[in-house]
Amino acid sequence: MHRIILDTDPGIDDALALFLALASPEIQLEALTTVCGNVNLDHTTRNALALLSLAGREDIPVAAGASRPLILPHGDAASVHGQNGLGQLQLPEPHIAPHPQHAADLIIERVMQAPGEITLVAIGPLTNLALALRKEPRIARAVREVYIMGGALRVPGNVTPAAEFNIYCDPHAAHVVFHAGWPLRIVSLDVTHQVSLTPEDFAQLATSLDGSVKHAILQMTDFYFNVFQAEIATKAFHMHDPLCLAATFRPDLITWQPAYVDVELQGALTLGETVADFKRHTQANIQAPVAVDAAGFRTLFLERIGQAYP
Amino acid sequence: MHRIILDTDPGIDDALALFLALASPEIQLEALTTVCGNVNLDHTTRNALALLSLAGREDIPVAAGASRPLILPHGDAASVHGQNGLGQLQLPEPHIAPHPQHAADLIIERVMQAPGEITLVAIGPLTNLALALRKEPRIARAVREVYIMGGALRVPGNVTPAAEFNIYCDPHAAHVVFHAGWPLRIVSLDVTHQVSLTPEDFAQLATSLDGSVKHAILQMTDFYFNVFQAEIATKAFHMHDPLCLAATFRPDLITWQPAYVDVELQGALTLGETVADFKRHTQANIQAPVAVDAAGFRTLFLERIGQAYP
Amino acid sequence: MHRIILDTDPGIDDALALFLALASPEIQLEALTTVCGNVNLDHTTRNALALLSLAGREDIPVAAGASRPLILPHGDAASVHGQNGLGQLQLPEPHIAPHPQHAADLIIERVMQAPGEITLVAIGPLTNLALALRKEPRIARAVREVYIMGGALRVPGNVTPAAEFNIYCDPHAAHVVFHAGWPLRIVSLDVTHQVSLTPEDFAQLATSLDGSVKHAILQMTDFYFNVFQAEIATKAFHMHDPLCLAATFRPDLITWQPAYVDVELQGALTLGETVADFKRHTQANIQAPVAVDAAGFRTLFLERIGQAYP
Amino acid sequence: MHRIILDTDPGIDDALALFLALASPEIQLEALTTVCGNVNLDHTTRNALALLSLAGREDIPVAAGASRPLILPHGDAASVHGQNGLGQLQLPEPHIAPHPQHAADLIIERVMQAPGEITLVAIGPLTNLALALRKEPRIARAVREVYIMGGALRVPGNVTPAAEFNIYCDPHAAHVVFHAGWPLRIVSLDVTHQVSLTPEDFAQLATSLDGSVKHAILQMTDFYFNVFQAEIATKAFHMHDPLCLAATFRPDLITWQPAYVDVELQGALTLGETVADFKRHTQANIQAPVAVDAAGFRTLFLERIGQAYP
Repeated sequence: MHRIILDTDPGIDDALALFLALASPEIQLEALTTVCGNVNLDHTTRNALALLSLAGREDIPVAAGASRPLILPHGDAASVHGQNGLGQLQLPEPHIAPHPQHAADLIIERVMQAPGEITLVAIGPLTNLALALRKEPRIARAVREVYIMGGALRVPGNVTPAAEFNIYCDPHAAHVVFHAGWPLRIVSLDVTHQVSLTPEDFAQLATSLDGSVKHAILQMTDFYFNVFQAEIATKAFHMHDPLCLAATFRPDLITWQPAYVDVELQGALTLGETVADFKRHTQANIQAPVAVDAAGFRTLFLERIGQAYP
Repeated sequence: MHRIILDTDPGIDDALALFLALASPEIQLEALTTVCGNVNLDHTTRNALALLSLAGREDIPVAAGASRPLILPHGDAASVHGQNGLGQLQLPEPHIAPHPQHAADLIIERVMQAPGEITLVAIGPLTNLALALRKEPRIARAVREVYIMGGALRVPGNVTPAAEFNIYCDPHAAHVVFHAGWPLRIVSLDVTHQVSLTPEDFAQLATSLDGSVKHAILQMTDFYFNVFQAEIATKAFHMHDPLCLAATFRPDLITWQPAYVDVELQGALTLGETVADFKRHTQANIQAPVAVDAAGFRTLFLERIGQAYP
Repeated sequence: MHRIILDTDPGIDDALALFLALASPEIQLEALTTVCGNVNLDHTTRNALALLSLAGREDIPVAAGASRPLILPHGDAASVHGQNGLGQLQLPEPHIAPHPQHAADLIIERVMQAPGEITLVAIGPLTNLALALRKEPRIARAVREVYIMGGALRVPGNVTPAAEFNIYCDPHAAHVVFHAGWPLRIVSLDVTHQVSLTPEDFAQLATSLDGSVKHAILQMTDFYFNVFQAEIATKAFHMHDPLCLAATFRPDLITWQPAYVDVELQGALTLGETVADFKRHTQANIQAPVAVDAAGFRTLFLERIGQAYP
Repeated sequence: MHRIILDTDPGIDDALALFLALASPEIQLEALTTVCGNVNLDHTTRNALALLSLAGREDIPVAAGASRPLILPHGDAASVHGQNGLGQLQLPEPHIAPHPQHAADLIIERVMQAPGEITLVAIGPLTNLALALRKEPRIARAVREVYIMGGALRVPGNVTPAAEFNIYCDPHAAHVVFHAGWPLRIVSLDVTHQVSLTPEDFAQLATSLDGSVKHAILQMTDFYFNVFQAEIATKAFHMHDPLCLAATFRPDLITWQPAYVDVELQGALTLGETVADFKRHTQANIQAPVAVDAAGFRTLFLERIGQAYP
């Protein structure tokens, strides 16, 4: 059983990752913590609450966190995810309110209360994790494991030629997180760009789904395909966040290799680049993904979602 | 009456600023918050507690804060202040323990509970203030005023040719603090280098003092003059932090001018430089000091200390 | 006798420096070399030729040099000097053509032919000097002395809060020049901002002048006062370049101090800042100006010009 | 017929590229220009002269160029190429002296004299090309084509995780060359790391060779395999420079794609990285290599060398 705190900025693929987490018996979702990223904090927090309501899991607390990156101004990804972050999907008003704690405090409290038990999964910018580390450095030793969706080690970035969105959005926080000395695995574009679903995949999935989750998935991915990828012939939805979530209980889906990775904070062209040195393995600070079982992930995702939300 | 939270990294001149605060009826010292800076957090927190014990003011809470800067590694100033931060002065074990809250949380709570009432006085690196701002951005509107000892606007730095120690120690935190949009006055080297006391001044002061505060002041300043300034003919103790503290209730000691000040985060030679633009006064984010009544401050300090600790 | 090559980007105060050079018996002007700076290379070269024609000194060669900075794009100062660089003064077409050599080659040839004899005086961006140094490093030992108008050591810049125009225009070239290991004196804003002439000074000067030089000086400075300084009550023309030129044969006008100066190439706010360390005098790479006999310079300039162009 | 000026810093693979050039009837080698890079300028110039003597081609002029990079200090690659640049191969004293012109001047003169005729092939750091461009910008329009061995677009660097040696050695010069607006093809590690020869390949080649060229090739590659790659099991000599040279007359060996490439000059981790944006093809400033016919190149190289130096 994996006791997970999911730090997230929903975001369409965040929503899919959340649905996958709720559909996976290997995972006990302790809490969601929200961060500004794909859209602003008000939207990501509201989305997290509304998605849990939609899935009938209002028992899971949602703690709001950072409303802006550590140092830089916030640049969002509304062009990809829509103004509200969920491809203009209008969800009902959630019945629950955010947890009173700040995301960083909830992370600190839960990790320190159960040493060696909690896995942090961060699928947005890393501001909350950085704040938690700076406020309570001991979480680095008390955490079980940390999974991050972010970075681009041997492939180009997706927001600049050199940088991936989550890292670029708060490179200083990423710098803190990469140097925390904790057990860190990153799920970077190197592998997430290999796991995509097509409009046909989602249409097929829809036949086994029902109700509001079906509606939500179809509307969000429709937006992605028809607005963001409007001019692209071969449409593909990259499953960045769901792959990261899956890797926590199915690490075998990915082939890992130790590496020393640092974050460029000074570059004029390379701000937020994750510079990987696979030769410095004795100083490795992460397990880096070098290959992925794309078919295995695809099967896992479609089966889990199809069975959980019939 | 000025309700003050003093964020500090004692530090010899921090200790003098604390003694001045305790000796000044205009000030109600709500709490001390400690930060790594001149020496590490364990030492600065222990020093804060012990100095309050020495002065018989164990009623004032001390909340420990950041044990390292936001992004950069910590570089201390033990060569100036001694390994323990107080010029090797050995104070008795304090009778009180640190407050359970983190410094940033104490700052947030006190400021939000009394909107428009609390003045923050930061005389060390700005890590705690930055963490507080990022965790609760609304303190920027709720605070009464913010005073900072730090920076060098039109004079050279003291740790590099371009940068002053408190800013250089955590330039990213300074960047956050300078751009918070709150009422900010900085007391920079431009004026603190004009207010010094000599060995003779301290010897004279000692004649009117008695007991442990006398002993503490003499031993700390002796260290400074005889170890740090061992090879300098004309000895002078710059009253950086005491001037900043005094300015909170005697702002007339300094001539202020609005300026736009930013912190260099990229420079190879200029990291942590406070770059001031006095022409952009319409976009001014600080009140900058352009002159100081050095004699007035000197009189104030000597009188207050002489009368408070007879 | 000072055998001088004047590297220049005329420029109103460049023109005044040239007139001063031609009026000073201590100087033997070997050549002018031109560089892009205040305006583009075509204009600066044409201005140099035309100014020599105006002064009847068509015997002095003018070699055109760099048409852009080493690395950065060119940003001019036409707002200060007018589109043509001379405050819209229309000079007659020069009768002479530029010298066939590139400025860098002329510098190299002249310096290497007369070791220990030639003084380089650069009153524009330092691109030509940098190209010459990189092409023929031995000029660093063969030159007699190098004077540069540029930089701001303990005062703000004039193009950004941190940087002076000539250095900012080509900071990489300045970096090369400052690290060449040759005998270098800089005449920076620290002193040039203390030597100004007023409209009244120029009006007074005009009474002793006649002919085309009188006309040129008045029209150029009129532009400066009435267009560039249109909204400033107290008008003052800073004599940057003339002071630098005068210092070559009257170094006593300035009080010099050895310093280690480096040029910031990385800063986001401080690009082109000349960072001075007066404490590293054992590694000093320049003689820096710390005071100026402003009255002495003023008298020198007005007398020389008044007597030379009656 | 390709009229080529080869700008080079021999260097073992530079020597092989030179032998290939001399063995290829498609190439008319106009001149060699030398630059500091693998080793210092004295060595690279001496090596160029001695290699031409060895091959009996003392008719080809060798012009020495830059003895250091534009801005940064020189860091060599003697660990790869040996202290003398040729794997400690001791060549007889050359009978010829360097050409009196500076490399940059020779490039300028030859290119301007034969507009549209001359191809520049640079297989070392780009300092000479940058100096030529800054001294005579019109060569950008007069050159036929420019080939560069350098950069790493979608693969890691070889001197840092982000940068390739030739670019890293003088990133400022590379910046100048990449933005010159001339027809530029780069042969980067993306393809050169796919074309290697083994000790067995060279042993096989030796059977068809005779005399001093055979001796030179074997001794240089022996050094590489037995000293530089002493601890590597699977030895491989990357044919960086020979591939670049071959591409000039056999561009079909490489699959090209337009890209916008810029050079990082600011990064703390990424100095000298060639950041490629294949999406900005409308602003493409280079033709980038995306695939190579490794077998085709291998055959070409072995045949040409085997037949030319029997």
